[in-house]
Amino acid sequence: MNIESMARKAKEAALAIGMAKTASKNKALEEIAISIQKNSNKLINENRKDVTEAKKSNLNSALLKRLVLDNGKIKEIISMVRGIIELEDPVGKTTEEMELDKGLNLRKITVPIGVIGAIFESRPDAVVQIACLCIKSGNAVILKPGSEAMNTSRELVEIIKKSLEKEKLPADAVQLIETREGVKEMLKMHDHIGLLIPRGSGSFVKYIQENTKIPVLGHAEGICHVYVDKDADMKKAVEICYDAKCQYPAVCNAMETLLVHKDIAKKFLPLIARKFKEASVELRGDRETKKIVKNINDASEKDWKTEYNDLILSIKIVNDLDEAIGHINEYGSKHTDAIITENTETANIFMASVDSSSVLHNCSTRFADGFRYGKGAEVGISTSKIHGRGPLGMEGLVIYKYLLKGSGQIVRDYAEGKKHFTHRRIK
Amino acid sequence: MNIESMARKAKEAALAIGMAKTASKNKALEEIAISIQKNSNKLINENRKDVTEAKKSNLNSALLKRLVLDNGKIKEIISMVRGIIELEDPVGKTTEEMELDKGLNLRKITVPIGVIGAIFESRPDAVVQIACLCIKSGNAVILKPGSEAMNTSRELVEIIKKSLEKEKLPADAVQLIETREGVKEMLKMHDHIGLLIPRGSGSFVKYIQENTKIPVLGHAEGICHVYVDKDADMKKAVEICYDAKCQYPAVCNAMETLLVHKDIAKKFLPLIARKFKEASVELRGDRETKKIVKNINDASEKDWKTEYNDLILSIKIVNDLDEAIGHINEYGSKHTDAIITENTETANIFMASVDSSSVLHNCSTRFADGFRYGKGAEVGISTSKIHGRGPLGMEGLVIYKYLLKGSGQIVRDYAEGKKHFTHRRIK
Repeated sequence: MNIESMARKAKEAALAIGMAKTASKNKALEEIAISIQKNSNKLINENRKDVTEAKKSNLNSALLKRLVLDNGKIKEIISMVRGIIELEDPVGKTTEEMELDKGLNLRKITVPIGVIGAIFESRPDAVVQIACLCIKSGNAVILKPGSEAMNTSRELVEIIKKSLEKEKLPADAVQLIETREGVKEMLKMHDHIGLLIPRGSGSFVKYIQENTKIPVLGHAEGICHVYVDKDADMKKAVEICYDAKCQYPAVCNAMETLLVHKDIAKKFLPLIARKFKEASVELRGDRETKKIVKNINDASEKDWKTEYNDLILSIKIVNDLDEAIGHINEYGSKHTDAIITENTETANIFMASVDSSSVLHNCSTRFADGFRYGKGAEVGISTSKIHGRGPLGMEGLVIYKYLLKGSGQIVRDYAEGKKHFTHRRIK
Repeated sequence: MNIESMARKAKEAALAIGMAKTASKNKALEEIAISIQKNSNKLINENRKDVTEAKKSNLNSALLKRLVLDNGKIKEIISMVRGIIELEDPVGKTTEEMELDKGLNLRKITVPIGVIGAIFESRPDAVVQIACLCIKSGNAVILKPGSEAMNTSRELVEIIKKSLEKEKLPADAVQLIETREGVKEMLKMHDHIGLLIPRGSGSFVKYIQENTKIPVLGHAEGICHVYVDKDADMKKAVEICYDAKCQYPAVCNAMETLLVHKDIAKKFLPLIARKFKEASVELRGDRETKKIVKNINDASEKDWKTEYNDLILSIKIVNDLDEAIGHINEYGSKHTDAIITENTETANIFMASVDSSSVLHNCSTRFADGFRYGKGAEVGISTSKIHGRGPLGMEGLVIYKYLLKGSGQIVRDYAEGKKHFTHRRIK
């Protein structure tokens, strides 16, 4: 299908789903959960086609594992959909209210953005998750899943469309792009699409950001730091640094650079180096670090700018708190950075000065995600400083509008001083 | 000066001013007010140079009037600065707080965006207003005023810089670009500048939007509608339509298209046409309108898409509420649209269905601005659906960050089920 007409239809559908009642949206979501269960055999069959193709084209084993849809995964997907039903409807909330004058009341209410464009990897569960988050937040969505998962995705989108229709919601609120050419066209649709959510590698997100006028919610990099201060508790520091690097090294909120205060380096570095050695973490150190931890590689300027997403860690010894903050603000990606210290004042300076979307004190960088932050579902993690920042739940899929109710007021009366604003805040 | 090094300096200054205490920022603002008073003669002299040049280059009289700085205007500027001192500091507010687990507390606090780029018309007061709003919200700003006002602007920026220094705030937080080439360079600084605020004509804002990767806060067009419903109160409808068109036709929230329900057209249109005739408003009507109001021009498809900013109005008769809503969502600029009706249900449908940043019931579109909405000062009106929408006060100049304070927590304990999140909302 022509992508522009697709986007136009999505825009029309967005107006309708944007006004849908919470109960109606939840019913459609429940219908999706039921239909996925009913059609599980069909889904698994379609998925087998994808897996067979993927094996033929030598997809790597990690991606292959994510691609597979079995009864266990289906159960998880259904429970995820029901989780979204439980979440509060983010639309139609009055966030502010003000009496401008007697009988002239201003309300600021949340509304959906409109049409979301989502481009993501080959996990079939992502199709359902993104579509359901968009439905719940009253947005239409154009999905482009990884081509490896296309048979599965096509079947899932069919199920979602039918479920929407059953609840008299527009089927065009969820649409599927199947080709890369389609994505290129989609990137031009800034008149119709309000927000793009790309999920994938940093270079992929960067490509999207550089090739569209549509606002992009996403992060190209997660270069996260832990700074171990001179007043750190050794045991906490060791545990947290190990967790931040090793608990799941492939993700964006894992630590990539460890900064250590010079006064504590001799005591701390041998302890953590031993733990990292056991976990086969490759250490790269600056000159001072290498004096303490022997036989490790050099950390160069390039390392400070690198997201390894792997069992590699760069280490730098800093002279003081300011140097640590300066290093993070210079080389970090404004994603997530932590300080380990028992000194509250030092922690407060760090938390105020580090210009990242999540700044942590005495806990692991791995906490910075939507689920752990209590959002129920994560739309994405943004390193933008506009709109949404950090882990984003459905609040990232809404904006607001002002509703002003009067009883015949005209501006001339206020401009000429016949009437005066009260500007009384109600909420 | 090289624009990149300017932007770098602004970024450094932004970190410092972003952490400045409210009292310190307010002291600097008071110092600005005092210094403008002290230097009023010098300012007026510099302004005379600008005015002389502008007259030579035949600047039109409206722009010339805006350019002039006299003792009256200086008084207004000083009072505006003191108004900003009175406004609440938008930085450092805790907007959400959650206990993730015992001893693991998450806070979401407002923070400045960083560096703002402001490009605007030739009014000298705009220099002071934008700089002071940025200072109060903890942002650095790079200003590019209209070249006609450059002598005045240079002097004002000097005063602002000295006032910042006097309060030990970084002078680089406010910087001045003097040339158009400088603007072109600034548009490339997406690594340093977080938000652009262009003020000026629609085509100018569009040019900025199309030539930068930096997010732009602004509106290219204000095509605002008033829909007079069949259940409208005639008197209110006439007063409001007249105010919306004539109270100040050159601005973005003035009415450009009037939609009238067919059942009320014969009664309403002659009334309002008479008033508009007295005010020399040129009317352009669709076929049905022309049957009722004789001897007016045709309104074509092009008129529905035009922001006149002048005493011109296009009129269309619609069959029902749906047609009115459809027309507005199709041709409007999502800025400000109003319905006049005594029927609450009709009003509610209109307010829910019209996808604009301000939707009004029984009052004039001219109310949609930052001052009337009780924001104290207006940064701009945005037709974006991301970040800020509609009239924006200083809330448009801040974003947030998450602060997570723990006591040694690591993610592994939660992943392995040894510990469980409480996710207890505190705020």
